[in-house]
Amino acid sequence: MITLYELAGADAERRFSPYCWRIRMALLHKGLEFSSVPWRFTEKQAIAFAGSEKVPVLTDGDRTVHDSPKIAAYLEAAYPDRPSLFGGAEALSRFLVDWTDLVLQPGLFRMVVVDIPPLLAPEDVDYFCSSREARVGMKLDQFCADREKKLVEFRASLAPLRRTLGAQPFLHGEAPAWADYVVFGGFQWSRCVSPLKLLEADDPIHGWRERMLDLFGGEARKAVGYPV
Amino acid sequence: MITLYELAGADAERRFSPYCWRIRMALLHKGLEFSSVPWRFTEKQAIAFAGSEKVPVLTDGDRTVHDSPKIAAYLEAAYPDRPSLFGGAEALSRFLVDWTDLVLQPGLFRMVVVDIPPLLAPEDVDYFCSSREARVGMKLDQFCADREKKLVEFRASLAPLRRTLGAQPFLHGEAPAWADYVVFGGFQWSRCVSPLKLLEADDPIHGWRERMLDLFGGEARKAVGYPV
Repeated sequence: MITLYELAGADAERRFSPYCWRIRMALLHKGLEFSSVPWRFTEKQAIAFAGSEKVPVLTDGDRTVHDSPKIAAYLEAAYPDRPSLFGGAEALSRFLVDWTDLVLQPGLFRMVVVDIPPLLAPEDVDYFCSSREARVGMKLDQFCADREKKLVEFRASLAPLRRTLGAQPFLHGEAPAWADYVVFGGFQWSRCVSPLKLLEADDPIHGWRERMLDLFGGEARKAVGYPV
Repeated sequence: MITLYELAGADAERRFSPYCWRIRMALLHKGLEFSSVPWRFTEKQAIAFAGSEKVPVLTDGDRTVHDSPKIAAYLEAAYPDRPSLFGGAEALSRFLVDWTDLVLQPGLFRMVVVDIPPLLAPEDVDYFCSSREARVGMKLDQFCADREKKLVEFRASLAPLRRTLGAQPFLHGEAPAWADYVVFGGFQWSRCVSPLKLLEADDPIHGWRERMLDLFGGEARKAVGYPV
């Protein structure tokens, strides 16, 4: 029995962690059944058993794994007969993980983080704002000022992604795999917390995101959020 | 018999095209013998048979292929019993090609393009300068001004590469493959034309570049250029 601890907002159905989305999509890719436990930032105690202060945390019988790339590697090793997450290219996919963590998600963070506090469970608001404000050195509304200019820069930063997805349907090729789920996690994070329209309709990335939203019976499309 | 047409400077041994380096390394990876023909920008006639105005152009018996990703795909298909260039991940490697073409190499271009004209064959200088100045809308020395600031930005743009190569020896994993040769081509281009020191010695990318320079009997290390 697999259980996934996922970050949630005041609405327990608002699951908005990009890292948890990676794993939700990976579990669906593998066709594995799982139950999901909504988790809030301040519930450190609830995942202390995993030796982690952050989600995703996954338990599978008596195994506990945290950190999204480690969870993906665990699932691939534990369920080798299910569709492969890496297609033999786990190492090569690391660059896409690092690009997502260091380019894509920071580019989103500085636009949408201000949209998050109103969606959080009341007990999470102070923790979230003070920890993020300490990190960025200012109030979140200041930090997210001038969105229009940042959106232009954000779209420019996606140039390599745009060219790749203009040439093939998924980052992994004809079908999606781990690299797609990782990059998609960033976009889905934004979709779950912000009304900001990230992509023009004629952007090849938009077309790819639509294909990702359609996967697994439209699982990601049904998520609580903003369908922009 | 394989022949590779490679961009050269006034010194026919100065081979400085990032795209040609990709293919030189790919041929060595496959263990294929080849002869190299030095080619200058203004020798369009010499490669007209290939339907291309640019190198690399590769001929193999009566086959002619141009464009570096197409040449790599050709070599993989034509020599399947040799070490694989893609390790099954050709599609996934496309993002690294696009990142190299749209982030890494433009970041280098705006620092080092001014170093190229003095190294060119005399008949190439006017063509090179006027075509590049038309592209960037100014003189090349103006375009490459303020290198120190650009170097800081360039190094920052390498953050994903740095993190990946801090975690594993090559982009492809334990051993190099196509993605490594593509990214390395950019660094080797700079090494062949510019004394600019791109990387600090403690940068994980520096360590990777050293490993790349050591491959195939130090082929890339022996290249005419600036060992910085």
